[in-house]
Amino acid sequence: MKLGLLGPEGTFSEAAAKKWSPDAEMVFFDDMESAVTAVDEGLCDESIVPVENSLEGPVNVVLDTLLDLRSPIIGEEVLPIKQCLMSRGEFKDIKVIVSMSQPLGQCRRYIHEHFPLAEVRATGSTAHAAKLAQEFPEMAAIGCSEAAKLYGLKVIREGIQDQPMNHTRFIVLGTHNVAATGRDKTSLAVYLDRDRPGALYEFLGEFARRSINMTRIESRPSKKVLGDYWFFIDVEGHAAEGVLKEAIAALAHKNTRLKVLGSYPRADIL
Amino acid sequence: MKLGLLGPEGTFSEAAAKKWSPDAEMVFFDDMESAVTAVDEGLCDESIVPVENSLEGPVNVVLDTLLDLRSPIIGEEVLPIKQCLMSRGEFKDIKVIVSMSQPLGQCRRYIHEHFPLAEVRATGSTAHAAKLAQEFPEMAAIGCSEAAKLYGLKVIREGIQDQPMNHTRFIVLGTHNVAATGRDKTSLAVYLDRDRPGALYEFLGEFARRSINMTRIESRPSKKVLGDYWFFIDVEGHAAEGVLKEAIAALAHKNTRLKVLGSYPRADIL
Repeated sequence: MKLGLLGPEGTFSEAAAKKWSPDAEMVFFDDMESAVTAVDEGLCDESIVPVENSLEGPVNVVLDTLLDLRSPIIGEEVLPIKQCLMSRGEFKDIKVIVSMSQPLGQCRRYIHEHFPLAEVRATGSTAHAAKLAQEFPEMAAIGCSEAAKLYGLKVIREGIQDQPMNHTRFIVLGTHNVAATGRDKTSLAVYLDRDRPGALYEFLGEFARRSINMTRIESRPSKKVLGDYWFFIDVEGHAAEGVLKEAIAALAHKNTRLKVLGSYPRADIL
Repeated sequence: MKLGLLGPEGTFSEAAAKKWSPDAEMVFFDDMESAVTAVDEGLCDESIVPVENSLEGPVNVVLDTLLDLRSPIIGEEVLPIKQCLMSRGEFKDIKVIVSMSQPLGQCRRYIHEHFPLAEVRATGSTAHAAKLAQEFPEMAAIGCSEAAKLYGLKVIREGIQDQPMNHTRFIVLGTHNVAATGRDKTSLAVYLDRDRPGALYEFLGEFARRSINMTRIESRPSKKVLGDYWFFIDVEGHAAEGVLKEAIAALAHKNTRLKVLGSYPRADIL
């Protein structure tokens, strides 16, 4: 099985991929968008991408790309995340910090306190950052300790994210919907007209009335005008079964612009 | 009147500040967090900061900082945003692109298409990026055209954000709550227990039942565990008047952890 993910080797995505499918053949992509669209484009059988972090919130590019995707979500993994500061040089020599925007956000306060004057560079992945830091002793990467091993860097500080407890949730994209297991979750995207006040309340009512538990709600701009959103909602249950099937049918009947992104077995909780 | 904002000169915040109060004495801060807390810390009478963008969504650091703030929101400004690519050098020579994470997100596709190999650096502000680009002809900043004038750069491309229509909403923080004008908006932050399914629905019900229009909803992680959020909600009306006052009282009665961030006159719509 070919499993697509953000590369190069040593990303947190790789740790999640190994947890998901230890024997898969890993196919590394240079940027997050390509990892999301990889199954749609026939480049691999499945792909795994981060979708939200408990400190910094949603991975915007993943949410935005999901809207036009054909491949369904078929699974999820939750990983505890320890951001490491790694370099060839010493703490006192660090002048440049390099990482992805998400980890930089997770370590915002740390960077501000310890490196107020450092130059901060954004790269496509934490492992790519570690690769860059190989070249310059005054550069430090922020990422997975695995990357330090792979690229010959020292871990100077471990767990530098702004709160000790930090988790990232990854989703797995595949070619076919998966059947219900009895312990499922469904991800939905819904567009609610900004000119209809109360639309979100009405929408949530279809779930609340049926005692369907919502585990997540996230809004992303529709990119048209301010105040116009797509909502990304996760609920318990499988879209093809029981009360959730009913709720989705009721919403379709009301002409709600709803996209079922996938139903899949819930990951074991932290 | 001393008005705090993100500096140096030439940021989009400065354009918003001039619209808000042309005669104010501008007090520039190095980073967004300091601009948000400036009134709380007695460093200025008011401060103006971006809170959301129609392409890239919320400004995370502003939302996160609002939660602990004493200063109320007293106003808003909405600005059309044209991101400019500016440099001392030529388009073909650009190897490094520098800007804030928000503008980089607004131009994500453009950068990916036109500069797939460029190094991308994140700075504290767009004007700071322009200042850096003064030094190296192979470096381009993304920001406000005003910054190009100030720092002697050429505007190489104008309006490079991923959609032509692009707006940023700024909020103004002050020392005192402002009285109702009849055309007001109220910003709220509410913490909803993740272990109480349907809590968001119930919360929104207090507004929907009273026909209070919601113009925005945004979730930010509580930074404790996945699935645990603060919601940032904007509604029409003033917290000290009429049905909105009633709704807030009803929520307080239910022990909802609700913070009124401020009631203020609505900005003229785009």
